Amino acid sequence: MNEIKIFSPATVANVACGFDVLGFCLDSVGDDMVIRKTDKKGIFITKIEGGFDLPYETELNVAGVSALAMYEAIKPDFGFEIEINKKIKPGSGIGSSAASAVGSVFGMNELLGRPYNKTQLTEFAVKGEALASKCEHADNLAPALFGGFTLVKSMSPLEILQIPSPNDLYATIIHPQIEVKTSEARAILPKEVPLSHAITQWANFGSLIHALHTSDFELIKRSLNDVIVEPYRSQLIPHYYEVKSEVIRVGALGAGISGSGPSIFSLSKGLETANNVKDAMHKVYAKTGINFDIHVSKINTSGVKII
Amino acid sequence: MNEIKIFSPATVANVACGFDVLGFCLDSVGDDMVIRKTDKKGIFITKIEGGFDLPYETELNVAGVSALAMYEAIKPDFGFEIEINKKIKPGSGIGSSAASAVGSVFGMNELLGRPYNKTQLTEFAVKGEALASKCEHADNLAPALFGGFTLVKSMSPLEILQIPSPNDLYATIIHPQIEVKTSEARAILPKEVPLSHAITQWANFGSLIHALHTSDFELIKRSLNDVIVEPYRSQLIPHYYEVKSEVIRVGALGAGISGSGPSIFSLSKGLETANNVKDAMHKVYAKTGINFDIHVSKINTSGVKII
Repeated sequence: MNEIKIFSPATVANVACGFDVLGFCLDSVGDDMVIRKTDKKGIFITKIEGGFDLPYETELNVAGVSALAMYEAIKPDFGFEIEINKKIKPGSGIGSSAASAVGSVFGMNELLGRPYNKTQLTEFAVKGEALASKCEHADNLAPALFGGFTLVKSMSPLEILQIPSPNDLYATIIHPQIEVKTSEARAILPKEVPLSHAITQWANFGSLIHALHTSDFELIKRSLNDVIVEPYRSQLIPHYYEVKSEVIRVGALGAGISGSGPSIFSLSKGLETANNVKDAMHKVYAKTGINFDIHVSKINTSGVKII
Repeated sequence: MNEIKIFSPATVANVACGFDVLGFCLDSVGDDMVIRKTDKKGIFITKIEGGFDLPYETELNVAGVSALAMYEAIKPDFGFEIEINKKIKPGSGIGSSAASAVGSVFGMNELLGRPYNKTQLTEFAVKGEALASKCEHADNLAPALFGGFTLVKSMSPLEILQIPSPNDLYATIIHPQIEVKTSEARAILPKEVPLSHAITQWANFGSLIHALHTSDFELIKRSLNDVIVEPYRSQLIPHYYEVKSEVIRVGALGAGISGSGPSIFSLSKGLETANNVKDAMHKVYAKTGINFDIHVSKINTSGVKII
């Protein structure tokens, strides 16, 4: 096998009370990529489609950097070409850079006969993600590689847990086309938080993990609260609380900021409710004059895959 | 049925990263209590054994106050006598007051034909617990009533989750006979904590809940860390870190402060390791000149019960 075509999915990180550690994987949004062995040694970005201004220089491209990290570990006597059909808008807050970083290392690993496991692939992908977000984190990489819900227990050593989730769980995500700078989203967070809030957060997070294990939708609903980060970062997203209250009114289990925004995610039991949530989001944003996209997706339990 | 004899178990609260929300129930330590219907209306403490100086006045006795809370909700045309054989030392940090508060309401509920569920019984018991600890909390009440591991998701409304745990899980607890005032244990805690530490704490707590669900002992071990409270409260317990490192050296999964101390709990896979942990604790404390007790117990998955 000399060429492989893959689907590298969008993901939601910073899932409410699971800020910085919990993410999940989407089904209906993602990049298509082609990875191809080539006689010439090295990593070469040969095609970028999708209309975004992304660099072809390997060292400046997220997919290129993660591919290089893996390439240098293996040092094969051949090279790889990478084609990216970018469908996840950069800066949307649903793991656009993570999808690129994951796609190249996943595809190369397949062509090489799978020398690495998914945690090892995440280690390489972290290098690419760091190029985009200026820090090493795996919040979006882990769900893109493993699928479903993932808990990044620690970065050093890297430990990723796969958390089960109910079959009938759907996400609806609105991407308001405004820019939220990651640096600004970081700067707005307090360095210290009240101990009482932290306790509430881990009570909710433990409950959410229990609820995912037991497929208890009502408990998911009662646990999807973020008392630490949302009060700050929601200020950067117009009409955030209006979206949140409207989606809950039409039956969503809850809502939160996807990644560092500006996208807002919502979780629902069943496709019908997820579509009602889409309508509710549409109604709120239609009157704002801000352009937006909305995605409805089942939770993708397999992650990045060959197509 | 006019009389019932019950076993009301000791419990461990503030389980490491689950500070203020996670507790578990012990098997080998607990109070015996007798609850008896009587023609005379009211709640009467008629016998207290065990050698501790506990009050007979209903309104000043933890078991009396929780019994009164339930009694006033039901207003029966008869009364109850309560006998307490106190075996859990007050102030030891393994839920002595909670056992009293739970025992009376559990026993009365049985004699009344179980009008209340366990969460409702916890609500009554909270009133007794508040007499002892000057604040309403259910950290020890919940495991004493429900058994096993419990997560108190919220106090208002009261919501208690039962978390499964592996069969072969044992606790070893050392009670150094020194006084740690609850007020001092509270005052020593910071009002604010670094966000980065809070994130580590909820990553560990979510991982611990996942590990209990999946019976993953190694992950229990990697998750039993408290980066928020232990650094402060451990200062109140002599030789705390020496005990901790020694029990881990002989195979314990981890250790932490039980309740607000001075007891130190440890969790182990299997009775043999739990006994080795007991020996290791003994060795550390034998040279200190401080009196101490050590208990080894399987996790008690049924909680308070009729004997």
